[in-house]
Amino acid sequence: MKALVATNKNEPLVCKDVEMPVPGDGEVLIRMQAGALNHRDVWILKGMYTGLTFPSILGSDGVGIDPDGRSVIINPSICYGKNPADKSGTYQIGGDYYRSLGMPQSGTFAEYMAIHKDYVVAKPKHMRIEEAAALPLAGLTAWRALFTKCKAKKGDKVLISGIGGGVALMAMQFAIAVGASVYVTSSSEEKIARAMAMGAKGGALYTQAGWAKGFGKSVGGFDVIIDSAGGDGFSDLIRLCNQEARVCFYGGTRGAINQLNPYPIFWNQLTIMGSTMGTAEDFREMVDFVDKYVIVPVVDSVYDLEDGNEACLKMEAGGQFGKIVLKIV
Amino acid sequence: MKALVATNKNEPLVCKDVEMPVPGDGEVLIRMQAGALNHRDVWILKGMYTGLTFPSILGSDGVGIDPDGRSVIINPSICYGKNPADKSGTYQIGGDYYRSLGMPQSGTFAEYMAIHKDYVVAKPKHMRIEEAAALPLAGLTAWRALFTKCKAKKGDKVLISGIGGGVALMAMQFAIAVGASVYVTSSSEEKIARAMAMGAKGGALYTQAGWAKGFGKSVGGFDVIIDSAGGDGFSDLIRLCNQEARVCFYGGTRGAINQLNPYPIFWNQLTIMGSTMGTAEDFREMVDFVDKYVIVPVVDSVYDLEDGNEACLKMEAGGQFGKIVLKIV
Repeated sequence: MKALVATNKNEPLVCKDVEMPVPGDGEVLIRMQAGALNHRDVWILKGMYTGLTFPSILGSDGVGIDPDGRSVIINPSICYGKNPADKSGTYQIGGDYYRSLGMPQSGTFAEYMAIHKDYVVAKPKHMRIEEAAALPLAGLTAWRALFTKCKAKKGDKVLISGIGGGVALMAMQFAIAVGASVYVTSSSEEKIARAMAMGAKGGALYTQAGWAKGFGKSVGGFDVIIDSAGGDGFSDLIRLCNQEARVCFYGGTRGAINQLNPYPIFWNQLTIMGSTMGTAEDFREMVDFVDKYVIVPVVDSVYDLEDGNEACLKMEAGGQFGKIVLKIV
Repeated sequence: MKALVATNKNEPLVCKDVEMPVPGDGEVLIRMQAGALNHRDVWILKGMYTGLTFPSILGSDGVGIDPDGRSVIINPSICYGKNPADKSGTYQIGGDYYRSLGMPQSGTFAEYMAIHKDYVVAKPKHMRIEEAAALPLAGLTAWRALFTKCKAKKGDKVLISGIGGGVALMAMQFAIAVGASVYVTSSSEEKIARAMAMGAKGGALYTQAGWAKGFGKSVGGFDVIIDSAGGDGFSDLIRLCNQEARVCFYGGTRGAINQLNPYPIFWNQLTIMGSTMGTAEDFREMVDFVDKYVIVPVVDSVYDLEDGNEACLKMEAGGQFGKIVLKIV
């Protein structure tokens, strides 16, 4: 079968024929139709990840056809809350282990994939193939951060930083769906305008010095903030918190957080949480939710599997608004 | 009546005769027997606080006799979760307001105090007067941070930083009482030894460079961390977290937090919370708990009310192990 193979760090992906996977105990063989890129894939290729294993078939997100002919999506959050004998490439959590699909376990960027049936879930009927491919990891991460961790609800004021990324957009769509008042930040006026066209109430350019002060004055504080940047800008987000606000980040692309003042955090009884991926229960709830609210993930662009390297360059450039999809058949 | 009056910032307290308070609607007159100092009192005197009002009778902690002759302690966490018409000197929380007893509302450092009956709770019978005076604010703050926020439980590994302070000691005693494995940090070997004599399993000198690395190697990670320092040392505490650990701080004496790495926070699904004082429910639960486990607050030293300034200097010096109490009668 054809697969997009990571041969080593700092090497381009190679689209080539590899052996068909043989399903193990409890596993099923999925004929893949599309996958979607995540920053994780790009960081693995740049060597910026732990537990690198080459060669590997990357890809956490995917949609395909199961042996019974049903359209399915894959839950990429492997062993979350389980404790498999094989701990390689896994992260311990509360005595258990989790990891993301796609290195060391072969991922979705291939014509076929063997996966345990517990991670196979019916594709939401209202989505096109490319949209369904874009859902799993972004939807799961956004769900856990926004609802499981931050308990976002109707009437909350929610701020999503860095709009345009897959998780940020999903979090925005989810929060709007439950009736929260959602605002966004971006380095791009165009992205803010697109978010507002989708239902966001407003936005701020975080590239403007002192943006948080003016934004706080014009729109007030927030009950929930979802971030993936960290860095020096994180303390701006804390300044924008209402009392008892919940702040959750699922990434830290801007690195270490500095000048974080503890006083507003304890006076205002804030909660700051880190989150990554989600449990099987989070995934089921998320899929039920997108079905109920007919939510459609935003697809930025679609590439053929053979053009995986081009797709990675697009993601690295960071200009996308939504998910970058790889079409397999 | 005699009272210890703060006349202005950067001025010594004055012990003098003032008018007897007249209880308002729903209030009772308490004949005070002892009070206890908190950092708040010292910070008010140094002008390091918001909403300064002079002259004021300070004091958040106290024990006395109510009009029916019962021994009572005072819950100093005023209007926590209520919304009084008078918002001066209060902090908003979730649309409601809270403040600590003792400026603007007259505090416990006086022979008599008028206080709403809702804030008057029976004194734990097993405590001496001085010990009961030491309980309220430290016990409440420790309770909310450790249990309401961090959900500490039997079997958890708990780290308490800066042992010797009133809240830190209460948190240590509470955590030991529920069967947690408790460790402490301090700048003093003597304080660590005293904590271990009280049931702590071990401790580390945070003044030694690289202490966290060695400590993590020798005793492993923690499920709950209670801190009141913040500052550059806070990131050391994050390095010592187990997966899904809860970290709560109720102060930030070392100022802004720097070099806080977001990656371990989201990979390990950490929760960082700020907390201050507590609700009426927290207070009731805390008092029931100290009754059940026969917990006795640690009293560092007892001063006469007239020697309030000397007591403040002792607190500022920071060498105390336990609460500094002011005897009134």
